[in-house]
Amino acid sequence: MTTLQATSSRLQVLNCAACGAPHTAFTLQRVSECCAQPLLAHYALHEPLSREQGIDTAENSMWRYHAVLPLLDEANRVSLGEGWTPLLPLHRLGARYGLADLLLKDEGQNPTGSFKARGLSMAISKAKELGVTGCIIPTAGNAGVAMAAYCARAGLRAVVVMPRHTPKAFKEECYWYGADVHLVDGLINDCAARVRELNADGALLDVSTLKEPYRLEGKKTMGYELAEQLNWTLPDVLLYPAGGGTGLIGIWKAFQEMKAMGWLPATAQLPRMVAVQAATCCPLVETLAGHQANCHSYVGQPTIANGLAVPRPLGEPLMLQVLQESQGTAISITDEQMLEGMRELARLEGLFVAPEGAAVWMAARELLQTGWLQPNERMVLLNTGSAQKYLDNVEGRY
Amino acid sequence: MTTLQATSSRLQVLNCAACGAPHTAFTLQRVSECCAQPLLAHYALHEPLSREQGIDTAENSMWRYHAVLPLLDEANRVSLGEGWTPLLPLHRLGARYGLADLLLKDEGQNPTGSFKARGLSMAISKAKELGVTGCIIPTAGNAGVAMAAYCARAGLRAVVVMPRHTPKAFKEECYWYGADVHLVDGLINDCAARVRELNADGALLDVSTLKEPYRLEGKKTMGYELAEQLNWTLPDVLLYPAGGGTGLIGIWKAFQEMKAMGWLPATAQLPRMVAVQAATCCPLVETLAGHQANCHSYVGQPTIANGLAVPRPLGEPLMLQVLQESQGTAISITDEQMLEGMRELARLEGLFVAPEGAAVWMAARELLQTGWLQPNERMVLLNTGSAQKYLDNVEGRY
Repeated sequence: MTTLQATSSRLQVLNCAACGAPHTAFTLQRVSECCAQPLLAHYALHEPLSREQGIDTAENSMWRYHAVLPLLDEANRVSLGEGWTPLLPLHRLGARYGLADLLLKDEGQNPTGSFKARGLSMAISKAKELGVTGCIIPTAGNAGVAMAAYCARAGLRAVVVMPRHTPKAFKEECYWYGADVHLVDGLINDCAARVRELNADGALLDVSTLKEPYRLEGKKTMGYELAEQLNWTLPDVLLYPAGGGTGLIGIWKAFQEMKAMGWLPATAQLPRMVAVQAATCCPLVETLAGHQANCHSYVGQPTIANGLAVPRPLGEPLMLQVLQESQGTAISITDEQMLEGMRELARLEGLFVAPEGAAVWMAARELLQTGWLQPNERMVLLNTGSAQKYLDNVEGRY
Repeated sequence: MTTLQATSSRLQVLNCAACGAPHTAFTLQRVSECCAQPLLAHYALHEPLSREQGIDTAENSMWRYHAVLPLLDEANRVSLGEGWTPLLPLHRLGARYGLADLLLKDEGQNPTGSFKARGLSMAISKAKELGVTGCIIPTAGNAGVAMAAYCARAGLRAVVVMPRHTPKAFKEECYWYGADVHLVDGLINDCAARVRELNADGALLDVSTLKEPYRLEGKKTMGYELAEQLNWTLPDVLLYPAGGGTGLIGIWKAFQEMKAMGWLPATAQLPRMVAVQAATCCPLVETLAGHQANCHSYVGQPTIANGLAVPRPLGEPLMLQVLQESQGTAISITDEQMLEGMRELARLEGLFVAPEGAAVWMAARELLQTGWLQPNERMVLLNTGSAQKYLDNVEGRY
């Protein structure tokens, strides 16, 4: 087993998300040994680290924040230029709805066309650092493509397990990267079962959402970027499409870290976080509404927003905690509404966003109607990907 | 007619590329009145402008160079976050071929998935500034998608004319942006003829390659970025897929401007520039080889690299000048070779590049074999786009 020594990174320890039990960060870890829950990376942030020291401004990727990321040796960085994506004002869409300050962070401009590039760049870099030779993933599409790409770049074996109904473009791109692709009848939880069978001997690292500690660390860079792009202020509300929830949890983690380091004032008002789900698969909405104790036996159906078809997310407790701490909420959107949102964003703003991103905009419209959102608030829509690979789902629906 | 006043931009005058005759930069211009040739933007660069003054480092797009761009009023900027794309080392591919310093600039991470975003962001911004209400373009695919997106963002009417055989994804995306799409049997020169018919009354601005002065100014930012990303040095060789040629010409223009401003030493060795074309459509290669006096009656055939199917580029004289001044060359690559290059880049580097980008890599392999390129030279491959929209062309060929 590879045991590492920390160098320039301030990575200190991994803590169980449920009970806090410490786990060493210097050997390969999966979920916590105590509770089988996600492990959260903790950094030595009490030692002063200013924004000027902590940000590598010459780096035009998420790696500009490497001082607060878990990679110990930069030689292990597996990067395709992910992150440092644009935060775009939506003047025309805002004007139509009387919104003063509407912004969209466009994650579709990442390598492989989605926000998944951040988490997988980090996870595969750490896998390389820890001596892993191959990785496996259950995926609704985008994460599998990203894993296949980063494994190719690192020279690791890649096994991707995705629902058979996933649009063709996701499968094709995985094949190009040389991944083994397995197709499963069902949703991502059925893919997870197949992953357990395929990896019964544990020869591959399972990089399922939150089943290893580092995808989250890649995803949190969205939070750092938002703060830097808004000149160290934060929006009033952040709307996020929540499937597995890593982004939601990671962004919130970034806000806490920035407060701890003084990059944000300790008294900074954090945004209300909105988790947006699909009407056909909205476990978080159901739990929050008290219709179920948790998502453990929730049954979901497919949606054109493949990334939202996650019926039983391991990170549900952490997501609920973010919503509670931020005074946020969860809301579900139908596929028809998503298509309407895609049309509006394309025609008024020139943005061909994934159905997940369109869902977020439609959630804003709903929350404006109910008065939960005010038109003068600064709101950020997180578009997780480009619509390009979803063509099978949306063809002719412009 | 809108007449503008220069403000922070140093834009001074437009000169005919053939005879140098000056044209005012402060009204709407198309090609030169004297020779019907491209107009080149000239800036007041004799007044000192240091790199520190001239680069807006907080801007993570091509607009970081706005001081050397032609937009007069920033309020007219129509941006989706284009440019400032990653320059990626290709260690694994380089190692396979014994290359010490192989780099790829990945333009596939631009809005709408290609380098065309740069030119169209600039052209549509200037169109807006000059009071234009609609634009029309003949396109092999990517430029049309980009124009449709930026027109949507600006609120301008968009008319796109493309070959009927263009892959579906290009057409679909234009429809989403609300563009009028016309399909033509033939190549881009046949589309240009249809544009002239459709726009007989001149109501729309024709933003054909080099038929207005500003797409070139957007494209030149690739040259600025290369220099900045290589810490104000330049590679030995730059390989570029040349269809209409705006990028090749624009990058070379950027090098000259940077020398004039002292951003690069006046004695800096500029890269040898290689124009890469498709075997089925290689007018520049034919002219350079002396098989024809020029491309005026060249007949091309389709290729899986749609962007290279440009049989009679208006910019041929300027491209030939770049090749001559840089001691460069032109070379053609077959569709089968492009597929081989796509496989290598995907499997070894995790990059799903457009056939145009793969052609550039295969050109490097050819030129290494002939000895024109040396393995120890620093070479940059310019990948102009993502392969995602080319799926119809390359499906199942991994």
